Amino acid sequence: MTIPTDPQTGEFRRSANHFDARVTADGRDGWPVEAGRYRLVVSRACPWASRGLIVRRLLGLESALSVAVADPIQDEKSWRFTLDPGDRDPVLGIKYLAEAYHAADPHYMGGISVPAIVDIPSKRLVSNDYPQITLDLSTEWTSFHRPGAPDLYPERLRGEIDDVNAGVYADVNAAVYQAGFATKQAAYEDAYTRLFTMLDVLSERLEKQRYLVGDTITEADIRLFTTLVRFDAVYHGHFKCNRNKLAEMPVLWAYARDLFQTPGFGDTVDFDHIKRHYYAVHEQVNPTRIVPLGPDLSGWTPHHREQLGGRPFGDGTPPGPPPEDERIGDTDGVTA
Amino acid sequence: MTIPTDPQTGEFRRSANHFDARVTADGRDGWPVEAGRYRLVVSRACPWASRGLIVRRLLGLESALSVAVADPIQDEKSWRFTLDPGDRDPVLGIKYLAEAYHAADPHYMGGISVPAIVDIPSKRLVSNDYPQITLDLSTEWTSFHRPGAPDLYPERLRGEIDDVNAGVYADVNAAVYQAGFATKQAAYEDAYTRLFTMLDVLSERLEKQRYLVGDTITEADIRLFTTLVRFDAVYHGHFKCNRNKLAEMPVLWAYARDLFQTPGFGDTVDFDHIKRHYYAVHEQVNPTRIVPLGPDLSGWTPHHREQLGGRPFGDGTPPGPPPEDERIGDTDGVTA
Repeated sequence: MTIPTDPQTGEFRRSANHFDARVTADGRDGWPVEAGRYRLVVSRACPWASRGLIVRRLLGLESALSVAVADPIQDEKSWRFTLDPGDRDPVLGIKYLAEAYHAADPHYMGGISVPAIVDIPSKRLVSNDYPQITLDLSTEWTSFHRPGAPDLYPERLRGEIDDVNAGVYADVNAAVYQAGFATKQAAYEDAYTRLFTMLDVLSERLEKQRYLVGDTITEADIRLFTTLVRFDAVYHGHFKCNRNKLAEMPVLWAYARDLFQTPGFGDTVDFDHIKRHYYAVHEQVNPTRIVPLGPDLSGWTPHHREQLGGRPFGDGTPPGPPPEDERIGDTDGVTA
Repeated sequence: MTIPTDPQTGEFRRSANHFDARVTADGRDGWPVEAGRYRLVVSRACPWASRGLIVRRLLGLESALSVAVADPIQDEKSWRFTLDPGDRDPVLGIKYLAEAYHAADPHYMGGISVPAIVDIPSKRLVSNDYPQITLDLSTEWTSFHRPGAPDLYPERLRGEIDDVNAGVYADVNAAVYQAGFATKQAAYEDAYTRLFTMLDVLSERLEKQRYLVGDTITEADIRLFTTLVRFDAVYHGHFKCNRNKLAEMPVLWAYARDLFQTPGFGDTVDFDHIKRHYYAVHEQVNPTRIVPLGPDLSGWTPHHREQLGGRPFGDGTPPGPPPEDERIGDTDGVTA
């Protein structure tokens, strides 16, 4: 995997999303919401894709929107379906996610990223626009939400959620990559400093309230969680985000455990995929590709955040267990 | 710096010591103990050299045996005196430690390591035999020990100290390097497993007794300390020794802090040298050579181990403060 950095400043440059069609209730982009029509392609290693996995679980979209899980280790053709029989996604019949990208645009030369929404009949990529994908699952796919599905993007709180998301994106979600992929000391130090400054701000915010916005789980919590759950396993060591471990920041650690133990969060997390992806793929950071045996994950245990009140699902209910064929195996003794 | 590993197994191979003459009271190797005659060349980054710094402080040998501190970052000619005016050691007048090696053996082709004892008049290397150097400071340099110097290698405990040292060497001191320099997963996993198994054993041993052997500080504590003090700063992340941080192992963490706060230990530690050395020199492990800003070192604080009893210096006394010109600057807010 080539990591694009600015030769002058050593800063990591995330490539822009290219496919931003939306699947909507009214089908205005040509892609109407329809059960069984689309496939959500993810890697369980990827924090951006994992947002979609969590939202899909919380909203009960499992049977309306199926999931393809890519091998956590990309090869030179990027994400591939080597976890499936015959190395092909059984629904799309393709070996590489790139095939769906090229079906949509034969001249496409950009990166191949997850999450991706693929139209099953045409095998064409519809969208890799990760921030929009989860919002659309909440707001456009409502006809397929389970009874008791929470409102993860409540209308009256959208301004506040968007604000929190913007800060979390810049100084948490993206900052860990900017720290880890920096090739110059100053670029690294800038990202590290922004990251821990923001984590301290978030920690203070979460000291007395259970969730980031309002008193229920929202999109904002999901976006923070996918970075936090990877923190000690990969960002702390591999990306040099090492002022502290998450386990040494009491409020954020309890917050992350609280979400981890909420149905729909921990049951989407595969620490094996996470660790193997980061350590084996980023040869520029880890030339030996050796995957650390640590950290000890047995600390993902009770948190007592319920004492702060809050109603995780608002007027809704927790989702049931994941479908049989989506359950994740033993993850070093952590029970989801 | 080239890291020698076995191409078959991916195991790190430490090169053997070449110069093993001893400086003794009776001068039987041609090198009699004499005040002002020898120079101890160290890097404050190096755990093997730091043993000598600690023993020299505890025994009060500062005025009898002077110290040259090398730049923590070697270049292709290895350890160099670029911290000194004119980039030369002011006493030996040499720019590179290699010059003393070649003065002793013009045909020497092996590695240049610290600690090194150099004969000042001839500028020749006498010994780079680190395990023997500290024992000789304790047992051969007695005529120059300060009043109240502790006995770090008491005759009646030598068997037990040697046993503990052998285990600590194989599974702690050397194992962190074997984990960090491994080029194959199995070699890494073997070293990691031995390391944490031994740390658990040592933790149990130190739960009820303040020091490793007997009830006073001995050579065994010094050899364990120099690895522990580097653990969270470099071995945990850079060498993938990441089951836990030292700060997450309560007994060993308190033990390390206890020693750190004992005069002669913490006042030899330079976290800046330690971090810059490991991260900037091992390009095979850290190609960007970026030095992490973390960890937060403010935790090197009170430990309450004095409640376990023990007499740190036996019938002796603690050393005074380090000589003015050997004091270490601000190390990220840690006071030694």
